[in-house]
Amino acid sequence: MTLLKATNITWHSTHVERKDRDCLLKQSGCTMWFTGLPSSGKSTTAYSLEYELIKQGYLAYVLDGDNVRYGLNKNLGFSPEDREENIRRIAEVAKLFADAGVITMASFISPYRKDRDLARKLHIETGLPFVEIFIDTPLEVCEDRDPKGLYRKARKGELKGFTGIDDPYEPPQNPELVLKTEKHLPDELVANILAFLVEKKILNGQSTVT
Amino acid sequence: MTLLKATNITWHSTHVERKDRDCLLKQSGCTMWFTGLPSSGKSTTAYSLEYELIKQGYLAYVLDGDNVRYGLNKNLGFSPEDREENIRRIAEVAKLFADAGVITMASFISPYRKDRDLARKLHIETGLPFVEIFIDTPLEVCEDRDPKGLYRKARKGELKGFTGIDDPYEPPQNPELVLKTEKHLPDELVANILAFLVEKKILNGQSTVT
Repeated sequence: MTLLKATNITWHSTHVERKDRDCLLKQSGCTMWFTGLPSSGKSTTAYSLEYELIKQGYLAYVLDGDNVRYGLNKNLGFSPEDREENIRRIAEVAKLFADAGVITMASFISPYRKDRDLARKLHIETGLPFVEIFIDTPLEVCEDRDPKGLYRKARKGELKGFTGIDDPYEPPQNPELVLKTEKHLPDELVANILAFLVEKKILNGQSTVT
Repeated sequence: MTLLKATNITWHSTHVERKDRDCLLKQSGCTMWFTGLPSSGKSTTAYSLEYELIKQGYLAYVLDGDNVRYGLNKNLGFSPEDREENIRRIAEVAKLFADAGVITMASFISPYRKDRDLARKLHIETGLPFVEIFIDTPLEVCEDRDPKGLYRKARKGELKGFTGIDDPYEPPQNPELVLKTEKHLPDELVANILAFLVEKKILNGQSTVT
């Protein structure tokens, strides 16, 4: 912590630094960005990871459609501009969370490379670790799962602009992690991510990702 | 924590509850909303509180113009609609932070009662404590401090729509705390707020504010 003094001597302001919060939490604030097709298993994986992190005493939080689309981004629709603004705001909020020391998981389809690249840039330029996790589940597996019947509706033409059907998904080119949900159970995927976080010293030490 | 099981037995999802994070952090996530005239001492007080909380082992984070106006809200100007949207987004982000267990301090002039009331409503309806802190510094004291020379510019007509000069400030009617920065040092104000947080069991226990 550094002590800053204002010119008016009856006032002083002290400033907490990122490392103070990281030290308190014994972790490095960071953003883990889960991207993949609808029903690929992004949120299941993110929530399983959150559960395990909290159990181990680390502070983690998931940003997803449930807590963002109906709140912060409720004034956005699904036009190209609104989709871009949706991801931009999420990236900015994730950055604030990471800055606050939280292991932040953003779980959104985020189909466009340029939007994810912006999210990465926003973190990197302020020295915050950004971990892109590609939930690489084949389209046919996602479509077979289809828990909300959305793929079926999209195939029938009742849903327009559905990612994977009539809207493109651009897979990451250099993600930090690629996970296969059709081959591994969530616990195995979580173990995989945890090993990565330990290796990068995001848990129990200073991060080396950026 | 509750264990949820999906219909597909190879998949299961577990869910962290707010109390799990509160238990981990030994505090209740909440939002402390600092409002007051420009140069009233909002940020000085908020940062002094943050410093003391972190020193005592609590996780706190300040949202203010520096980390919000140039990031999340950089596409907003100062029209009435944009000012309203500015506060709305901040309120939604503060809510997410509070939900994540963080003692969140929002430090913004936030001159309009209806915007602050919306921020309160967003928290209360999801069971999150909201503490409105009125930094009640007289206009003449703020104008005398004027560290950035903004009051002087506003008086000369070089700045339009400046709160306190040619734009109204609506003081809170029922704030949880009223602080007098011209009568007390920041350390005394911080001690005052900390006593309130202990009384409401936001520190070391379950909150009783809402």
